[in-house]
Amino acid sequence: MAEVVRNKRVVLRNYVTGFPKESDMEVVEGTVTLKVPQGSKEVLLKNLYLSCDPFMRNLMNKPQEGTESSTTLNYSAGSAIGGFGVSKVIDSGSLDYKYGDLVWGITKWEEYSLVPSAQIISKIEHSHDVPLSYYTGILGMPGVTAYAGLFEVGSLQKGERVFVSAASGAVGQLVGQFAKLTDCYVVGSAGSKDKVDLLKNKFGFDEGFNYKEEPDLNAALKRYFPEGIDVYFENVGGKTLDAVLLNMRVNGRIPACGMISQYNLTQPEGVTNLANIVFKKIRMQGFNFFDYVHLYPKFLEFVLSHLREGKIRYVEDIAEGLENGPAALVGLFSGRNFGKQVLLVARE
Amino acid sequence: MAEVVRNKRVVLRNYVTGFPKESDMEVVEGTVTLKVPQGSKEVLLKNLYLSCDPFMRNLMNKPQEGTESSTTLNYSAGSAIGGFGVSKVIDSGSLDYKYGDLVWGITKWEEYSLVPSAQIISKIEHSHDVPLSYYTGILGMPGVTAYAGLFEVGSLQKGERVFVSAASGAVGQLVGQFAKLTDCYVVGSAGSKDKVDLLKNKFGFDEGFNYKEEPDLNAALKRYFPEGIDVYFENVGGKTLDAVLLNMRVNGRIPACGMISQYNLTQPEGVTNLANIVFKKIRMQGFNFFDYVHLYPKFLEFVLSHLREGKIRYVEDIAEGLENGPAALVGLFSGRNFGKQVLLVARE
Repeated sequence: MAEVVRNKRVVLRNYVTGFPKESDMEVVEGTVTLKVPQGSKEVLLKNLYLSCDPFMRNLMNKPQEGTESSTTLNYSAGSAIGGFGVSKVIDSGSLDYKYGDLVWGITKWEEYSLVPSAQIISKIEHSHDVPLSYYTGILGMPGVTAYAGLFEVGSLQKGERVFVSAASGAVGQLVGQFAKLTDCYVVGSAGSKDKVDLLKNKFGFDEGFNYKEEPDLNAALKRYFPEGIDVYFENVGGKTLDAVLLNMRVNGRIPACGMISQYNLTQPEGVTNLANIVFKKIRMQGFNFFDYVHLYPKFLEFVLSHLREGKIRYVEDIAEGLENGPAALVGLFSGRNFGKQVLLVARE
Repeated sequence: MAEVVRNKRVVLRNYVTGFPKESDMEVVEGTVTLKVPQGSKEVLLKNLYLSCDPFMRNLMNKPQEGTESSTTLNYSAGSAIGGFGVSKVIDSGSLDYKYGDLVWGITKWEEYSLVPSAQIISKIEHSHDVPLSYYTGILGMPGVTAYAGLFEVGSLQKGERVFVSAASGAVGQLVGQFAKLTDCYVVGSAGSKDKVDLLKNKFGFDEGFNYKEEPDLNAALKRYFPEGIDVYFENVGGKTLDAVLLNMRVNGRIPACGMISQYNLTQPEGVTNLANIVFKKIRMQGFNFFDYVHLYPKFLEFVLSHLREGKIRYVEDIAEGLENGPAALVGLFSGRNFGKQVLLVARE
């Protein structure tokens, strides 16, 4: 007879409009049978680390009828939320996985999750010089996102001028460092003095500024980019994007990874300088991780070697316990996190 | 001794803000020597047809210091304006051209122009079944623009759903017809009932609508594209773009050729739905003709054969005489033109 144990989970109480609040979620207790049902090909995971990512906010919206979605991950009011995580396989109906395997992929915000094996992105060859939590960030989705966004979507060339917003976050800190490894001039914006110090002193950005202390973002960008911006890695949208458009160079590129400043507004800000896309022949392209999963082995080799040589630094902000999950997730939208926000659920 | 003749020209009186007026230009008379100066490698052209194009509005702005321009064509207050045109070679300091050659390229708005030979895009192999004026449009810059925008920038695939704004204009009418030749579903918007009739009855669009009579552009697009838009060929910007963003499909493309609705506004309209670029992984790309000149021979073969078989129709609106040039050019911005606006300067 299979063991039945407690399964805490973070449930979305109601669809969200405006800024998400902790009270939009609740932690409830259920149980789980520690065995994959007879005949099922699914995999039973014990979740160790869960990733807090801005895109999760959009899944909290009430789904709009007839609107095509570019992801298969959707939240239902009353059910557990989900996202990327690092997990241990407890039982498996798939021949590809067995008890004890460490994996990362899409899972639910709960202690144990039964998931289709297709949701697992990769097994983890764990070695103890690299924290397991890194597979929610630099060695996981955010890492591939920064890499694909810069080099594939953004066609980054050696020596170009790069601007990145939300620059101390999970993706931004990697964008800046990957661009520096490509001999680029890199400037980042962030929302506090401490974060800007991190950019310059830890991540090796050429410059950084606190957007909250710049009354005129256009003037700030002109100061740091007197000759304009070749690649803007877009994480925030709104006023920052509008100022960037005035400062792009001809044939500039804007890989658009996110627009976090707009997700919680019932009336998004108007961007007025789009005609520059025509005048300067700018390519702006939305993208996400899933179209670039095939780059993962190549990416992992690239980033692990630089990480081990100390040429890439990585900062994460780890909250502990599912009870603290809602606060950690909501904190992303006020910039409370300092580096990549992770939630530790279990140590192994 | 070389002959000296009158040379009328259309001069920009002052840099323009807001909507251009006829009085922003004036027609002045000078003279020209009908011979290329000794030792010069330039080419003396007699201008036959001049092209009225929306991009010319932007050249009327006061140039901003430190702003990189993607074109070498700039206007100076007090000098003749310029643009694309069809001309006859009168004298040539270049071995590539000789008296009597018909050519199209960049020239000035005057009776005779002395131009660097690099401004000539192509010689014209004129045959009398095709009007010479067509080289300002379907066989010239607007033709290549429609072709490159759809197939190169827009990566148009057979059977996709295409929306084009300013659809009865020089570029729009060709975008729609090229997309129909690719077995696409095509809808266009234009600014009058007569223009919409033209789309449906002459150019073979599947549907068309008058944007001035649609109080809710989002609802109009949902009506014509219940499953969304794959490729939006952008000519107008502003409110139309904002509504389109709500109706794009995942992996949609927006080749951005122009944003004519914004060029005359001192405060451009705010576009609020850009987060869809991220959510739907949309690629929006500004472009212009000059990066695609190399496609011209292939393009010309494609379009001439379809034109001769009657599979492509083309409508132009021809004004006559340099005196009527300012009115014709200004008319573009109120939609006065019916089809491609051309200015006939001399018959040969």
